[in-house]
Amino acid sequence: MKTEVEKFPILQVTEQGTSRIQDTVVRELPLTIFLNNQELVTLFCSPTNLKYLVVGCLFSEGLIQGKGDIKKITVDDQRGVVRVETEEDKGRRIGSSGGRGTSFSSAPDAKDRSKVESETKISPHEIFTLMDEFVQSSGLFMATGGVHSAALCDTKGMVLFRDDIGRHNAIDKIFGECILKNIPADDRIIITSGRISSEIVLKVARKNIPLLISKSAPTNLGVRLADDLGMSLVGFVRGTTMNVYTHSWRIVPDGK
Amino acid sequence: MKTEVEKFPILQVTEQGTSRIQDTVVRELPLTIFLNNQELVTLFCSPTNLKYLVVGCLFSEGLIQGKGDIKKITVDDQRGVVRVETEEDKGRRIGSSGGRGTSFSSAPDAKDRSKVESETKISPHEIFTLMDEFVQSSGLFMATGGVHSAALCDTKGMVLFRDDIGRHNAIDKIFGECILKNIPADDRIIITSGRISSEIVLKVARKNIPLLISKSAPTNLGVRLADDLGMSLVGFVRGTTMNVYTHSWRIVPDGK
Repeated sequence: MKTEVEKFPILQVTEQGTSRIQDTVVRELPLTIFLNNQELVTLFCSPTNLKYLVVGCLFSEGLIQGKGDIKKITVDDQRGVVRVETEEDKGRRIGSSGGRGTSFSSAPDAKDRSKVESETKISPHEIFTLMDEFVQSSGLFMATGGVHSAALCDTKGMVLFRDDIGRHNAIDKIFGECILKNIPADDRIIITSGRISSEIVLKVARKNIPLLISKSAPTNLGVRLADDLGMSLVGFVRGTTMNVYTHSWRIVPDGK
Repeated sequence: MKTEVEKFPILQVTEQGTSRIQDTVVRELPLTIFLNNQELVTLFCSPTNLKYLVVGCLFSEGLIQGKGDIKKITVDDQRGVVRVETEEDKGRRIGSSGGRGTSFSSAPDAKDRSKVESETKISPHEIFTLMDEFVQSSGLFMATGGVHSAALCDTKGMVLFRDDIGRHNAIDKIFGECILKNIPADDRIIITSGRISSEIVLKVARKNIPLLISKSAPTNLGVRLADDLGMSLVGFVRGTTMNVYTHSWRIVPDGK
């Protein structure tokens, strides 16, 4: 965890009074991606698994289709620069890059997307068990309170787990690792600690994942897109309660 | 709140079993900003106070300096389009716009920024009282669990309060309203529900605000920038505890 945190002397105030202590704070790295020698975007991320992050990000944005599109990746984690060369020049000029909570695409739309086809089913008990395992897995969150997490799971347990200061980045790291290591994602499950907006649903649909599960709330566009794309969206999984927003036929009674 | 939410029929699972209920979900609007007839960026936001949001966003990104730079704003909240004309053509071409957790500037840097100069002081009791008022103010959060909030305060109470699905947007709405209504922000306080990353610190410093207070965690770059810029950064304000990360001289004992 050493590279992911920095210690600071702080003043802590409690009912007992004030004290000078050391606090552990999560690190943030500005990471600039160059695609075929053109500056694409600067992400703000946790400084680990940068290769996975960049590959996942390029996939999520539709700039690569898979591992075969990548000729070369060089990561300079000291300077916060990643250079990617792709087979064809699929680079898009993005000038000085966009803002916060923004997207490469101008509006989320399910029309051009193919539906997620999967007969995967899961029981409430399996979801609660997965979420328990998930929330206990982020040592970085426990130490700093400053990261989001994401996991790729099947119904029996977690396959991959990553955390990052950005909820998008955590999922991109998962998908980048799947792509580079040929880990199948189809028919599996994504769990996230973050809110489920339209962009998150589109990102997960792109990997053909039928079940998207969150501790947090969805947005209305997230719900509508998941419905249109055939995905089961489950939110507010807390203890032994949860809300199933779409395609609840995949949630089957325990033991069935 | 009607325009800010949408109701969906959902399957709720609890220990008592399953039930079909109506759930209230927060609305998400993709909002495309055109600056001097050039497409600038698409934000994903809550569909209220769009004029404030856009003015705050343009100010935060350094594209306008104040109200005087704006010739005309037209908001089409049905189509999710805002068109802004500025006095000089300060438009920058951003192509198809950037990604998530990204910035117009490639790396946060305090070197070119002027320090926040303010002798404002506040007591722990005043901070806890402000945070109590703040967390009780978001009816939208209570209804949906899906928004961040931000408030402009002085030591005695809240001056402006806004919420949005994006933590950046909530603060931009505050600053946009300040700019359009000539509400002073200098020497005042920003409270946010969200994490304090470098971008949030730079945004708040740009309005010359000396005190930045959050329920949540900061990042290491957020702490370093606040220190360099002369801002008091307070995190993890919960009940009667808090962490003062930088410039703790502004936090004075109660009654002093």
